[in-house]
Amino acid sequence: MRMFDKIAVVGTGLIGGSIALAVKKRKLARVVIGVSRRKQSLILAKNTGAIDRGSQDISIIRDADFVILATPVSTILKSARQISRIVKPGCIICDVGSTKQEIVSKLTPLIPHFVGSHPLAGSEKRSIKNASAALFENSICVLTPVRTTDNKALIRVKKFWSRLGACVITMEPGRHDQILSFVSHLPHVISFTLINSIPPAYFRFAASSLKDTTRISASDTDIWLDIFFSNRKNILAATRTFTHRLSEIRKALINKDRRSLRRILIKAKSKRENLH
Amino acid sequence: MRMFDKIAVVGTGLIGGSIALAVKKRKLARVVIGVSRRKQSLILAKNTGAIDRGSQDISIIRDADFVILATPVSTILKSARQISRIVKPGCIICDVGSTKQEIVSKLTPLIPHFVGSHPLAGSEKRSIKNASAALFENSICVLTPVRTTDNKALIRVKKFWSRLGACVITMEPGRHDQILSFVSHLPHVISFTLINSIPPAYFRFAASSLKDTTRISASDTDIWLDIFFSNRKNILAATRTFTHRLSEIRKALINKDRRSLRRILIKAKSKRENLH
Repeated sequence: MRMFDKIAVVGTGLIGGSIALAVKKRKLARVVIGVSRRKQSLILAKNTGAIDRGSQDISIIRDADFVILATPVSTILKSARQISRIVKPGCIICDVGSTKQEIVSKLTPLIPHFVGSHPLAGSEKRSIKNASAALFENSICVLTPVRTTDNKALIRVKKFWSRLGACVITMEPGRHDQILSFVSHLPHVISFTLINSIPPAYFRFAASSLKDTTRISASDTDIWLDIFFSNRKNILAATRTFTHRLSEIRKALINKDRRSLRRILIKAKSKRENLH
Repeated sequence: MRMFDKIAVVGTGLIGGSIALAVKKRKLARVVIGVSRRKQSLILAKNTGAIDRGSQDISIIRDADFVILATPVSTILKSARQISRIVKPGCIICDVGSTKQEIVSKLTPLIPHFVGSHPLAGSEKRSIKNASAALFENSICVLTPVRTTDNKALIRVKKFWSRLGACVITMEPGRHDQILSFVSHLPHVISFTLINSIPPAYFRFAASSLKDTTRISASDTDIWLDIFFSNRKNILAATRTFTHRLSEIRKALINKDRRSLRRILIKAKSKRENLH
């Protein structure tokens, strides 16, 4: 059922492409417009039926009712002022950035109907080739309104993500960034660190344990550089917690303290069994 | 085609059970005997057709031609002397322990036809319920003979693992333990550490990145305690390498050194893409 006349998706990669596909599938808009720097991405988006029209020129979003910013964090930050000047009055804008504090504090004063959002979905693959209309089904989408967020826009964005199948949760941008620094950013730091610790000559002896723990090391470099720098302080704090936990294991090994190490491993197993 | 008259598998868990199933499937022995401390495991092994006869009493292995020790490392070490007294002259024995130095140096003088081996297969699931006759197909099996290893036994054990579908590689026990400390033991240390660093209240916001990187945290506690203590020094060295790499990422973040962090992430992505 239609929610908007014209929706524009800025950035037609994995997330933007999946949103566009889901909007078309659920008929949430009459027209879906795609914006990308790369022509190839727009051609793919059009061929897969994700968008009706595509352009490399951002000014195509001028008559959209709803704009979703699905570019890397630094691009969202850089293009905010330009976008605020292009969109028509009343246009609702949300983003899908993996960090929220920096984006929300910059975009909220610039764009009257901006709502920060972050769908907790995706993978280490980035292109629209891996997009899926079902990506957000049964996922969590975090909205991060602040005191000055327009309430009507918030309600509409909430409804939008619900219609894509997501369970919508609302929290402060700072709280979002703290939680994500642990459940997403820290695992990426650790995975990058782990693969860089392994001598390549040993790769042929790697079983599934190394492959699983380092799968996300193949994630896009620039997307993750943006995330790391946009959430630096929280990520540094999370790595300090990690380092502390690692030193406990090292200490138990150094002291041949089987009892302590056993306690640590039992705790890990039990925690992991509660992570579904 | 038959290789042995009677094969005994000591420990009918995931690995032992899979070996027994593969032996039956490929008809490598006339009779397969299973030994386990747990009656339930023997019943399951018999019901799935993995073994012909089972016993909780180790002395059942006395007339076996080939014995495979598939218990945790500490059990292999503890039961070595007893087993050396039970088996008949000429009986070939191999193990599947994840560390080799300690096992090989203890068992080789005790058992004339002992050959250390380690099939690089398995998962965080341990029971025979997850066993599969195909577990070793296209896997690597490392044999770790030493100067005093009986050559005929080595040839037979090599042939045995090849017949189960594994690609057999031979190296010194110390070299094996060093390689495995990086490609298997370190990922486990890191995974245990990572899950123990995450506040459980944040679990509901975990996407696939945390789940993948911590999947192996659910591994069996006692098996991994054994491995950690049996390969302490190498694992401590591997964690030192990891800590050094982590401090490089932390330093780049602290110094807002985007160029260095970019280099680290590009290296990680390229290494991961070479790990198949």
